[in-house]
Amino acid sequence: MTADHLSTTFAALADPTRRAILARLRSGEASVLELAEPFDMSLPAISKHLKVLERAGLISRSRDAQRRPCRIEAAPLKEAAKWMDRYRQFWEESFDRLDEYLEELKKKEKRHARK
Amino acid sequence: MTADHLSTTFAALADPTRRAILARLRSGEASVLELAEPFDMSLPAISKHLKVLERAGLISRSRDAQRRPCRIEAAPLKEAAKWMDRYRQFWEESFDRLDEYLEELKKKEKRHARK
Repeated sequence: MTADHLSTTFAALADPTRRAILARLRSGEASVLELAEPFDMSLPAISKHLKVLERAGLISRSRDAQRRPCRIEAAPLKEAAKWMDRYRQFWEESFDRLDEYLEELKKKEKRHARK
Repeated sequence: MTADHLSTTFAALADPTRRAILARLRSGEASVLELAEPFDMSLPAISKHLKVLERAGLISRSRDAQRRPCRIEAAPLKEAAKWMDRYRQFWEESFDRLDEYLEELKKKEKRHARK
């Protein structure tokens, strides 16, 4: 099995702590210490998660500053979202079916109310 | 670590064979035999992948017919796409930056051409 980009991205996202780290980074850059704060986790454990995110290209770490803040890198997310988009018709279709069903129920109720 | 829905979905998508199976199912239901055909894989190996997809709720298998065709279930993909959408601004921003950069390059070229 080759370590293709999409698989690496999805594997990195398949963890609630890593998704929470990305959620935190939506509001701006943060150092490892700042990222570790809300989690009941050791710094090495957080660093390990950051390494997975960094290897997947989902975050980058500044080399200039001493605190080496992390920031989101969007390219892999864009690629993953593009992949997802091919399936959009399926969830839109299933909502259409749900709409039809609810419409059907309403009609039935009206018929019952008239009786 | 709890096996939350999103993590299960992303973990199931983190494999090229499983994504290829979903891609095949976009054009309609298919039996295990039909799904196995394009892959150089044993039936048990394909069945294992199907079980991962089924457990993640990404496919369902009909109980009526003897061939038990598989079909895509969109709900987990919808949930995952919704999660992705929160990051859309990041990749749109980075494309804005790329646009600005290309605009800058064009201007420079024009200036050089005039000299």
